[in-house]
Amino acid sequence: MTSMLDGGIHIRTPEYLVRLARVRALLAASNLDALCLFGSTWIFYFTGFAYQPTERPACVVIPAQGENAILAPSLEREHLEGVRATLPRATIYPEYPGRRPPMAFLADMLSEMGLSRARLGCDSDGYGSMWGSRGPSLSAALPEAEVINLRGDLETMRMIKSPAEVAAIRESARFGNLAHRILQDYVRPGLTEIEVGQRASLDCTMIVLKAFGAGFAQHQWGVSPVLAGFKAGPGTAFPHPLSDAKPMKPGDVLVTWAEVWIDGYHAELERTMILGEPTAEHRKYFDLARQMQEVGFAALRPGRRCCDVDNEVQAWAAAHGLTPSVRHHTGHAFGLEIHEPPFLDSGDETEIVPGMVFSIEPGLYVPGLGGFRHSDTALVTETGCEIITCYPRDLESLTIPI
Amino acid sequence: MTSMLDGGIHIRTPEYLVRLARVRALLAASNLDALCLFGSTWIFYFTGFAYQPTERPACVVIPAQGENAILAPSLEREHLEGVRATLPRATIYPEYPGRRPPMAFLADMLSEMGLSRARLGCDSDGYGSMWGSRGPSLSAALPEAEVINLRGDLETMRMIKSPAEVAAIRESARFGNLAHRILQDYVRPGLTEIEVGQRASLDCTMIVLKAFGAGFAQHQWGVSPVLAGFKAGPGTAFPHPLSDAKPMKPGDVLVTWAEVWIDGYHAELERTMILGEPTAEHRKYFDLARQMQEVGFAALRPGRRCCDVDNEVQAWAAAHGLTPSVRHHTGHAFGLEIHEPPFLDSGDETEIVPGMVFSIEPGLYVPGLGGFRHSDTALVTETGCEIITCYPRDLESLTIPI
Repeated sequence: MTSMLDGGIHIRTPEYLVRLARVRALLAASNLDALCLFGSTWIFYFTGFAYQPTERPACVVIPAQGENAILAPSLEREHLEGVRATLPRATIYPEYPGRRPPMAFLADMLSEMGLSRARLGCDSDGYGSMWGSRGPSLSAALPEAEVINLRGDLETMRMIKSPAEVAAIRESARFGNLAHRILQDYVRPGLTEIEVGQRASLDCTMIVLKAFGAGFAQHQWGVSPVLAGFKAGPGTAFPHPLSDAKPMKPGDVLVTWAEVWIDGYHAELERTMILGEPTAEHRKYFDLARQMQEVGFAALRPGRRCCDVDNEVQAWAAAHGLTPSVRHHTGHAFGLEIHEPPFLDSGDETEIVPGMVFSIEPGLYVPGLGGFRHSDTALVTETGCEIITCYPRDLESLTIPI
Repeated sequence: MTSMLDGGIHIRTPEYLVRLARVRALLAASNLDALCLFGSTWIFYFTGFAYQPTERPACVVIPAQGENAILAPSLEREHLEGVRATLPRATIYPEYPGRRPPMAFLADMLSEMGLSRARLGCDSDGYGSMWGSRGPSLSAALPEAEVINLRGDLETMRMIKSPAEVAAIRESARFGNLAHRILQDYVRPGLTEIEVGQRASLDCTMIVLKAFGAGFAQHQWGVSPVLAGFKAGPGTAFPHPLSDAKPMKPGDVLVTWAEVWIDGYHAELERTMILGEPTAEHRKYFDLARQMQEVGFAALRPGRRCCDVDNEVQAWAAAHGLTPSVRHHTGHAFGLEIHEPPFLDSGDETEIVPGMVFSIEPGLYVPGLGGFRHSDTALVTETGCEIITCYPRDLESLTIPI
């Protein structure tokens, strides 16, 4: 079986060992005995263990001293063979809910590790309620332990991307560019957004599989490595529409997305396109949205706070009388998840530092006409930011001839 | 804009009003003043409001008396136009995290509804941590209220499917049959599981869109209405493998899935197939797995407990010396989610009643050879169960000639 750890293209064993060393430093600084991780994204980030979470709980325990251990259901046993370097010990329970609750197995495992009365950091106090899973919480399962939520500290760790993470995001941006090109080439009046999006995703997936070879592994269950699509028509006038089966027609505004997942990471790339000759109104809002995005690019630099970027963009919008057309903040961090903190938002005072990666995507939404939003991926550098998505942003390149 | 409520094929406004009446009966019986729902599946189930959850919290409030209300972010405002029948009132907040926290807007909304010191049921005490969302909890935002977790009672409501829900699941089974046929037709040595799965999903999606017309609406963001695929080769010897890009070869065991989502519901259909002439070992385990599934079909009837079904299946496996090849329980309920409680598991004592819908999918997993598991959708009737997935289960029909 392919080892997830060694099968990574950019993110391999040494990267996970660095992350685990940072956990141990955090435990020491916080006078904690161990970190317990229940969330599958947290488990993947720190150990490289990718699996399909279900109602069956899993928990990774990273002790301040000693070997890491995992509690996992029987049906995941083989997946663990690939992650021995980060998870040398495992307690396997038969099933959920099972004759004996999985959390009782976890309590035993923690006791065997000498942690039943310990100070335990966690990402959450238990496994949560996915697909009807029903606790108990970690603090209820281990009543003599002290359980401290460390999610804020853990999120801070993920905010600054390592060189390997940046390499994965850069590679995603390159293939995202390809996915978007294929998507744009397939747009025709009369087709539906669902058809074009799925066809472009499939064709780009086939290229990605050929480019990376038979070792290419998915990090999520049943999810395509390429997600390309768009919303077309007046529905684009609000930011998160659900897709429908209406045929596209000349004059439609399209708001797109094209993401390719590499080692679990992605870059964010979104464009506004016009099907057929743009009207004067199309041109007006397209140009304003581009200018607003440029304000965001220029505002993103180290030493400022996230809210400063958003405040500058919103002030520009207000000065141009566009506030009623703004429906969301300037952007957000991301990486393993579609959105991650911090947010380029008036309410987020997090300091911007080199290595953070943000979407810059202020949008203008005009009822009856459509939405106007490009999203690009910006890496914070020592002096400003580097835009690592390279798809054209100008109207001529994004007009679909009919 | 298409109304989600009226755009449903089987699940329409009257169904939601019945569900809401059941909530009000639960509130009366539990002496509660309102129910607060944060989870997007819960919100969809009770109100028909489908949207893409993000870090921005949403909360539906169903008071014992008076009109329902929702707290939602600005970017979802237009989605609410389609659900006025179940959500006549809305409080819109600008953004998350925002200058003023969304949960402060929720506290105001609840105060205006006279609920600031009320007894409030909930699906969870706050919005949770999706994409870095950071509370506070409902009980912290409304310190004078009493917050009671009702998830168990709410899950019980969803366990017994209504005629409209059964109609949606039956229709999903019909199209799932089609999706599986297309999937099986596309299997060839040398192709990869990702390619065949995505190609079959796309082609079946196009048929579904044609069958249902331009009114077909997605209930999840960017998700295909058809998810068909399989895992091939020795990796099938454990139950939840992640897909890879290795070409299929003669002798591979394939374990498939084919789901079509109708009004947010699906039927579960999975098959074991053999690429090329089955060996004696293939035949042996294929036949045993089929017999084991028949034990499950026969065991599922009203008046028994979920654990009785699993215990009977596991006893059969033990009697045939197969216990080491069993890796999971017999099945699970489902509907809006892939798995839902109750579980056909030795640890689940829930009574089986007519209208429950379960997967029946005991599997045998043989290292080096593969996995042997069919999954069918069973509707509990007054006297036993009806299998509503109709795809062939015999080895001849599931052998791919090469």
